Parts: sequence; structure tokens; C-alpha cells
Amino acid sequence: MSRPDSLTFPPHLIPPLSPYLPRPDSRREDPSSLPFLTLTYAASLDSMLSLAPGVRTALSGPLTKSMTHHLRTRHSAILIGVNTALADDPALNSRLVGAPLSSQPRPVILDPEARWDFTSQSKVIQLAERGEGKAPFVVAGEGVEVSDERRSLLERAGGKFLALRRGKDGGKRFDWGDVLRLLKSEGLDSVMVEGGGEVINSLLGKEGNRYVDSVIVTIAPTWLGKGGVVVSPERSEGAQLRLRDVVWQGYGEDVVLCGRIER
Amino acid sequence: MSRPDSLTFPPHLIPPLSPYLPRPDSRREDPSSLPFLTLTYAASLDSMLSLAPGVRTALSGPLTKSMTHHLRTRHSAILIGVNTALADDPALNSRLVGAPLSSQPRPVILDPEARWDFTSQSKVIQLAERGEGKAPFVVAGEGVEVSDERRSLLERAGGKFLALRRGKDGGKRFDWGDVLRLLKSEGLDSVMVEGGGEVINSLLGKEGNRYVDSVIVTIAPTWLGKGGVVVSPERSEGAQLRLRDVVWQGYGEDVVLCGRIER
Repeated sequence: MSRPDSLTFPPHLIPPLSPYLPRPDSRREDPSSLPFLTLTYAASLDSMLSLAPGVRTALSGPLTKSMTHHLRTRHSAILIGVNTALADDPALNSRLVGAPLSSQPRPVILDPEARWDFTSQSKVIQLAERGEGKAPFVVAGEGVEVSDERRSLLERAGGKFLALRRGKDGGKRFDWGDVLRLLKSEGLDSVMVEGGGEVINSLLGKEGNRYVDSVIVTIAPTWLGKGGVVVSPERSEGAQLRLRDVVWQGYGEDVVLCGRIER
Repeated sequence: MSRPDSLTFPPHLIPPLSPYLPRPDSRREDPSSLPFLTLTYAASLDSMLSLAPGVRTALSGPLTKSMTHHLRTRHSAILIGVNTALADDPALNSRLVGAPLSSQPRPVILDPEARWDFTSQSKVIQLAERGEGKAPFVVAGEGVEVSDERRSLLERAGGKFLALRRGKDGGKRFDWGDVLRLLKSEGLDSVMVEGGGEVINSLLGKEGNRYVDSVIVTIAPTWLGKGGVVVSPERSEGAQLRLRDVVWQGYGEDVVLCGRIER
């Protein structure tokens, strides 16, 4: 039954990750709590996600890739920004062997201006139609127009548009608190944020990092060199943003760092 | 006999490092070989050495610090650029308990325009006079004037100025091949390069990386945020600079990466 491109994640690597992952149902009871947020990305030694915006760049190895697919089964939602959706045509499902549809995360695309140009051929739509992943929720700015055609294409696949007021910074982005309350109201009590650079830097920034419960970063032993897409937050008051409860684990040639943000 | 600020390095951490370090005397026999070059630095998750040029920034923990002092005893020379000498007033010796003077590395300052303003109070000069470190060799551009006063201050401590022709890129820097041949001619058959940003990026660049035998990078679980001193080489032909023979080892909250550059 397993597909040729399906993955396995070695069971002995699960226990070290688990303290950094949401416990099933732990936040479902409390309606006032926000979803558990895991920030995760893979970067080069020079903290880059890719050689240039929109360029998929092979960085980390097969073991780290299977970890990502394991993490996806441990969250209710997987969230990315619209630029990543536009650049990568991502699948946003878990290809772990035997992952049932119920363990698939709900893809969430942050798309303030409704720019994501999905079609019936987009991977995430196709996977939803084949029952190999859930259909995406697209969070668009309140009042932003979406054609009936796009709306019904998304709805036919099982997804939907969610309208959200835009934040204070000129209305270009949402406030993270608003996003998380919206996800909670949709029954999503944990979310894994995977990228891209703008979303990650915003979450590591002053307004965002209070919402981050765990950080799981993969580092690959390579320098991409100046000009790539960098993970590095805006600095607030000259302070470092440190992690606590740090665990490093070798994953083949890569290393995986788990931690929590020190406050 | 041990000084209050002296350090110990746990013996069990030595064997994993040794494959990445020069073997004693291995290159002394062969007059045509260049010194073994170990590139080492400690950076944040966003690949920064410090919050800003000239600002010493606490990044890595005590175990990684003692590793650095162990590495210093394993090389004939320790090399830094003039900006680091100017900013940090560095000691450049090993404070490992019981490190004899013979195991201390020779400090080498790359100073094309002879800008380093050392005095009799500079740490590296004082340590040399107390027999706790070797006196520095200052590599200055050929034809650059150095006052007799400075020259004799350095020589009294046991160091000297070395004149070297400047490289092709407008004469601002030396060519790495020239630097290494000069060190070799001075009987220095291994060199640990510790910083700063300009020197490291130059060594990781197209002209420099062919001379790098080993890389030992410490990563601390913190983001310094935009505006710091970044390690990221100039990109050559859109290619990544990958490491091979990679080993990651947890050092308390930090991780240490050892590897060799893939060619």
C-alpha cells in the first residue's frame, strides 16, 4: 500500500523530539488557550533557507526530511506564507508510510492579499482530492476580493477561505495573535510553521516570538553564500533571542536543534 | 600553580576533535607543503560573530571556550585580522591548566597597513613578557612604514614585523597562499584562524577555501538579529560550499561542527 515516494522515520528519534511537540488534546479543553506553535525550518550554516527567493535549494538530508514529515503528523495544522506557496507549489502533507488522513495536518496559507494562484493542478489540491492530505485553509485579508471560481475550486477540494482583519503595520500582514485565535476557532489546536523567510523572521521578532512554544531547527553543513534568503529577526533593543532547554541531535550530516524561547 | 582564570578541557572530548587537527610534525618534513589550516569560529544561529563590529558578544558557553583553548595548544600559530586585534585586545594564548610555553601558539596578526596600535599594555604583549604566551608576528604590507619605536616594542617582547607583498585585489589584502608560505618559512607548520568576520569570509571564499584543511564551528542557540557581523562567503558561481566528513557534538548548550571542505 505504501507509495514509492513514502518515507519512514526511525522510531528511536521520536522520544527526543516529543518534549518539544504538542501533547494530543492538551489545549483542546481550554477555549481561551491559543494553539501550540512549533517553529521549524532548515537552514545552511549561514542561516539561509535558499539561494534566492523562490529557488528551492537542496540543503538537508533524507533523515531530516523524514523528521519533517513526522512533525507534520504531530500537528493539527501546517502554516506557510503566500510567497512559499507561490514559489514551491508545496504538498504540505505527510508522506510517512501509513499516515492516515486523520493524522494529516491542515495546510494554512497566510495570504493577506489573496495572491495565491492555486489551480486544480496545484499539489495541495490534488492531494486533497486523492485523500492523501487535507485541503488548505487560505487566510485572506478582510474585504479582499476573491472570485467565485477560486472560492468554489477550494471548497470543492474541502478547503476554504477565511477572512481576517489585517494588522497594524500598514495592513500588509496579520497579527500573530489574530491568526492563532482564528485557527483555534477552526478547531486547530497545534500548528507547525514551516516558512518561508518572512514568516519565520516575523515569528522570531518582537511581536511574534511570544507565541512560539517550540523551535526545531535543522542546520545543514553548507554555506549558501551572500544573497540568499536569510533567517535573522529584526533586533529588539539590542538583545539576543536565546533558546533554553536546548537539545542538539545529529541527523546524518545535519544537526537538529530543539529548544524553547527564553523570556 | 594554576592561575584563577585557567581552564580545563574534558579529556573525553579530545578524540572526536583529533581527526580534524594537524598531526604533530606531519608537515614539518616537507618544505613544499603549506601549513595545516584550521578555520574556527563561534557564531549565533543567524551566523553572526557579534552584535556589531568591535562589540564583544557573549555567545558560546564555558565548555566551548575551553575547547578553543585546547585547539590553541594544538597549532603552531593562531591567526586573526587587524580589526579583531583593534577591537578586542585579545590574549591569543591558551589558558589551559598546565599548558607550557612551548605549547602556546604564535599569534599572527594580518595587518596590511600596519594599523594595529598595540602598546606595552596590550594583553598579548604583557602575556609574552610574563612567559604565558608567545609574542606576536605582525604581517604588514611590504613598504608600509613602521616606526622604530613600535618595531622595538614588539621585538623586545619577542615578536616581529614580517613584510609581505599585498595581493591583487587592489592591495587591500594579502593572498592566502603568500601568507601561508610566509608562516611556513617562519617554521609555523599549522595555523588556527579565529577571526574576525572579514578574514573568515575571505577564507571561505573562492580564493581562500582551497587552503582550508579543517573547519571547526561552534554554534550557540541564539539569534543576534539583523545588523551583526555575519559569516557568509561571497558566492562563487551560485554554488554551495559544503562540508564533508561531518561530525556534530553537543557542548552543553552549544554544538560543535567538525568537517572538511568538499571540493
